[in-house]
Amino acid sequence: MVHERDASGGLEWRVRVAHGPLEILAPEFGPFRRAWFRLQGLILGLVMKIWRFLEKAWDLGVDEPRKIIHCLKVGMALTVVSLFYYMRPLYEGVGGNAMWAVLTVVVVFEYTVGATLSKSLNRATGTFLAGTLAVGVHWVASQSGEKFEPVVLGASVFLLASTATFFRFIPMVKARFDYGALVFILTFSLVSLSGYRVDRLFKMAHERLSTIAIGTSMCILISMIFCPVWAGKELYLLITRNMGKLANSLDGCVVEYFKDSEPVIESEEESHMKLQGYKCVLNSKATEESLMGTCPYGHFNFQHPWKQYLKIGASMRHCAYCIETLNTCINSENQAPEFIKKHLRDVCITFSSYSSSVLKELAITTKTMRKSSKIDYLVGEMNSAVQDLQNALKSLPNLLISPQLPVLGATENEKRELTSTTTMIPLMEVIPLFTVATLLMEIAARIEGVVNAVDELADMAEFKPAADDKNKQNQPTNKITSDNKDQETMKALQKV
Amino acid sequence: MVHERDASGGLEWRVRVAHGPLEILAPEFGPFRRAWFRLQGLILGLVMKIWRFLEKAWDLGVDEPRKIIHCLKVGMALTVVSLFYYMRPLYEGVGGNAMWAVLTVVVVFEYTVGATLSKSLNRATGTFLAGTLAVGVHWVASQSGEKFEPVVLGASVFLLASTATFFRFIPMVKARFDYGALVFILTFSLVSLSGYRVDRLFKMAHERLSTIAIGTSMCILISMIFCPVWAGKELYLLITRNMGKLANSLDGCVVEYFKDSEPVIESEEESHMKLQGYKCVLNSKATEESLMGTCPYGHFNFQHPWKQYLKIGASMRHCAYCIETLNTCINSENQAPEFIKKHLRDVCITFSSYSSSVLKELAITTKTMRKSSKIDYLVGEMNSAVQDLQNALKSLPNLLISPQLPVLGATENEKRELTSTTTMIPLMEVIPLFTVATLLMEIAARIEGVVNAVDELADMAEFKPAADDKNKQNQPTNKITSDNKDQETMKALQKV
Repeated sequence: MVHERDASGGLEWRVRVAHGPLEILAPEFGPFRRAWFRLQGLILGLVMKIWRFLEKAWDLGVDEPRKIIHCLKVGMALTVVSLFYYMRPLYEGVGGNAMWAVLTVVVVFEYTVGATLSKSLNRATGTFLAGTLAVGVHWVASQSGEKFEPVVLGASVFLLASTATFFRFIPMVKARFDYGALVFILTFSLVSLSGYRVDRLFKMAHERLSTIAIGTSMCILISMIFCPVWAGKELYLLITRNMGKLANSLDGCVVEYFKDSEPVIESEEESHMKLQGYKCVLNSKATEESLMGTCPYGHFNFQHPWKQYLKIGASMRHCAYCIETLNTCINSENQAPEFIKKHLRDVCITFSSYSSSVLKELAITTKTMRKSSKIDYLVGEMNSAVQDLQNALKSLPNLLISPQLPVLGATENEKRELTSTTTMIPLMEVIPLFTVATLLMEIAARIEGVVNAVDELADMAEFKPAADDKNKQNQPTNKITSDNKDQETMKALQKV
Repeated sequence: MVHERDASGGLEWRVRVAHGPLEILAPEFGPFRRAWFRLQGLILGLVMKIWRFLEKAWDLGVDEPRKIIHCLKVGMALTVVSLFYYMRPLYEGVGGNAMWAVLTVVVVFEYTVGATLSKSLNRATGTFLAGTLAVGVHWVASQSGEKFEPVVLGASVFLLASTATFFRFIPMVKARFDYGALVFILTFSLVSLSGYRVDRLFKMAHERLSTIAIGTSMCILISMIFCPVWAGKELYLLITRNMGKLANSLDGCVVEYFKDSEPVIESEEESHMKLQGYKCVLNSKATEESLMGTCPYGHFNFQHPWKQYLKIGASMRHCAYCIETLNTCINSENQAPEFIKKHLRDVCITFSSYSSSVLKELAITTKTMRKSSKIDYLVGEMNSAVQDLQNALKSLPNLLISPQLPVLGATENEKRELTSTTTMIPLMEVIPLFTVATLLMEIAARIEGVVNAVDELADMAEFKPAADDKNKQNQPTNKITSDNKDQETMKALQKV
C-alpha cells in the first residue's frame, strides 16, 4: 500500500509481505536531501492543484460563456464609475461619499437583471429609511442633554439592529429583503452615530443618496444593455430543460431495462448521461427558489405568473423521485426471467414513449407559450398504454401457470427452458417486473400532475392557442398520424 | 363565488344563479362612499397582513429562541463598537476609517461562529491582498506619467475585477471565498483609485486594517462567548435529527399501510407529522451544504471529518426517495385484499421495526460518538426480516391459487369471501402489495448504505468503543434480550 503523500513526497515504500509484519524499506538519504525531496513533492502537488483548478475554471468558461460576459460587464461598470471619480478625486468633489458609488457597484451588480434591480431597490430603500430614522433619533438624542445622548443613541442602535437582524430570519424577508435589512442596520448605525449636526447630516444624506443612485443606475443600465440575463427567463429555461431531461431519463430507464432483449444502438456514455437527467431535476430546487427570490421578470409582461413555475418544478421533482426508484430496479440484481420481461416489453416501451412524449410536449408548450393541440391526445394515449400494461399484467398468470402454451415471440431455446421448468415459475422471480410496472403506472399519475400544473400556467399566463389549432377538428385517431406527430414533437424539441 | 379583494374591499356581491348568467348585485352608493369602503377594506387587509406577519415572527422566536439570542448579540456588538467610536468622534481620532469597524461588524456577524470566523478571515485576507496589490499598481501607475496613469489604473481595475468576479462562479470558490473575492474587488478599486500618495496610503492601510481587526475580533469574541452556535454542531444535530425522522417516517408508513387491520392508538395529526418526516430529509441538502461551506468546527477537534456528514446526508436522502414512493403506495386507491395484506402484515411490521431501530441506533451512534455494540446485530435482524418477507412472498402463491385452504388469521367473513371468488384471486389485486414489499427490501439495502457511511465516520473520527463493550461477548441471541435492547434504544433516542 503506497500512501499518496509518500508517493509524491518522500521515497518511503511500504511492502506488505504475505503473513509477515509491515516492513518499511527506506533508502538511506541524509535529512537535508529528504527534506529537499519532500519540498519538491509539495511544490509539485501545489502546482498540480492549481493546474486542476485552472482547468476547472476554463471548463466553466467554455460551458457558460455568458458568465464570462457578466464578468466583463462588472469590470466595465466598475472601471467607468471609478474613473469618473478618479477624474474628480475621491475625497474631494462629491466628498468622501464618492467611494459609496464604487462600493455600490461592487455589491449590487449581480448575474441576473432581476437580482441587480432587487439589490438596487433594497439598497436605496434601506439607506433612505435608515437615514430618515437616524436623523430623527439623532435629533431626539441631541435634545436629551449631553449625558443622555450616548444612552439614547446606543439604545436605539441596539434595538433597531436587533430587530432588523431578527426579521432577516423570517423566510419571506430573507428571500426578498435580506440585503435591504443589512443596509438598513449599516446606514442607521453610521448616520445616527456620526458626529455631525443635523443640517450637515442632510447634506451628507443628499450626497450619499446621489452616489448610490449613480452606482445603481450604472449597474442596472449595463446589466440591461449588454447581453442581459433575466432571472425569469433563466427559471423558464431551467424548467423546460428539466422537462426534456425527465422525458429522456424515463425513456432511457425503460429502454435500459429491456435492453437485453434487443441491443440499443446509442453509445454507452450518451445513454448513461440521458439516464441521469432526473438527478438534475432532484437537485434544482435551490436554484429555482433563488431565481424566484429576485424579481423574476424576463422578456414577458410583469404580471407573468412566475410562482406557477415553482409548482411545475415541484411536480416534476415528485415525478423524479419515482424515476429514481425505477432506476434502482433496473440496476437491481434480481431480474425477472427474460421471457416474462419480453411479455411486457412492448407495452412498457410504448408506455414510456407516450409518457415521455407528454413531457416533451409540455416542454414545448412551456417553451413556446402556446397551448398544445395534442396534449390531450397524448395523455389519452399514455393512459391507454397504462391500461394495456394492466391488461398485459392480467394475462401474466396464464403464462406463469402453463408455460407449455406457446409464448408469443419466445425462441426455441426459451420454450425448451420453459418446458423443463416445473409447472410454475416462482412468483418471486416475477415480482421485480411487477414493481417496475407499478412504478411506471405511478409515474403516469405523477406526469398527469405535471400536465395539470402546466395547464394552470397556460390559463394564468393566457397562452395563445396552438398554431395548428384549425386542424384540431380532425384530431388524430390512427396510429400512423400519431407517429408523424411524435416525429414533429421530437423535431420541435430538438429546436428547443 | 366571492373574490377576496371584493370581500374585504367593496360591497359587490356576485351571485351565480343556477343555469342563469353571472349577475352583479351592487347596492347603489355614491362614488365617495364606495371609495371610502374600498379604502377601509384596503387598510383592514393591510393590518391583517401585518398581523399575520408578526404572528409568524412570534412563532419563529418561540420555536428558535437561539435566533433571538443571536439578534441580541448583533445589537450588542454593534452598540459597543459604535459607542467606542462615538466617544472618539467618527471622523476624527482613528480617521474616517473608523466607520469600517461598524461596517465590519454589520457585515461579518453571522449566525454560527464558523461563518463569522470564515467571513472575518475572508475580509481580512481580501483587504490585505487587494491593498498590497493596489499599492503596487498605484506605484506603477504613478511612474508611467500623467497621461497613462488613468489608463493603467482603469485597465488594472477592469482586469482584476473581471477575474475575481469570474472566480466567484467556480463552485469551490463560491462556497468558501465568495465574500473574500468581493472584498478584494472592493478594496482594490478603492485603494488603487484613491488620490493619495503611496506614503499616505500606508497610513490609511494601517488604519483600515486595524479597524477591521477591531470589528472582526469583537464579532468573534461575542459570537464565541455568549451562547455560541457552532456550524459543525448544527450539521451534526441536523444529521442525527434527520435519522430519527427517517426512522419514524418508515415506521409510520408501514403501520399506516396495515392500519385497517388493527387500529393505531396514536392521534391522527401526530402520526401524520411523523409520516412526513422524510420530507425534511429530502429538503435539507441546501442547509447541509451551507453549514459545510463555512468552517464547520464545533466542540470537536479540528480534524473532525465533517465531509463525511454530507455523505451520510446523501445516503439518507437516497433512502428518503424510496420512502417517498412507499408513501404514495400507501395512499394509493388500489389496495390488495385485506386477507392477503394480513398474510404479510407481521413480517412487514417486524421488518420496519428492525430497520427503524437500525436508523435510531445510527442516530445514537452519531450523537454519542461511540461505536454501537448492537448495530451488527440489528442489521442482521433487519436482513433476516427481509428474508422472512421473501419467504412470506414465496408462500403467497398457494394462498392465491387455493383460497379454500385455511388462511391463518382470516376471519369467517373473509373465508366466505374467499370461497365465493373463483379459484384464483386476480393477480392485479396483489401487485400493490408486491410493490410495497419490493420497496421495503430496497429500503433495507439503502439503510445499509447509511450504516456504511456511519461506519466510515466512526473509523475516521475514531469513535470510542461502546460503553457496554464488555458485554459484547455475550451477544444477544434470543428475541427477548433484543426486545429489551430495543426499548433501551428507544429510551436513549428520546433523550436525543
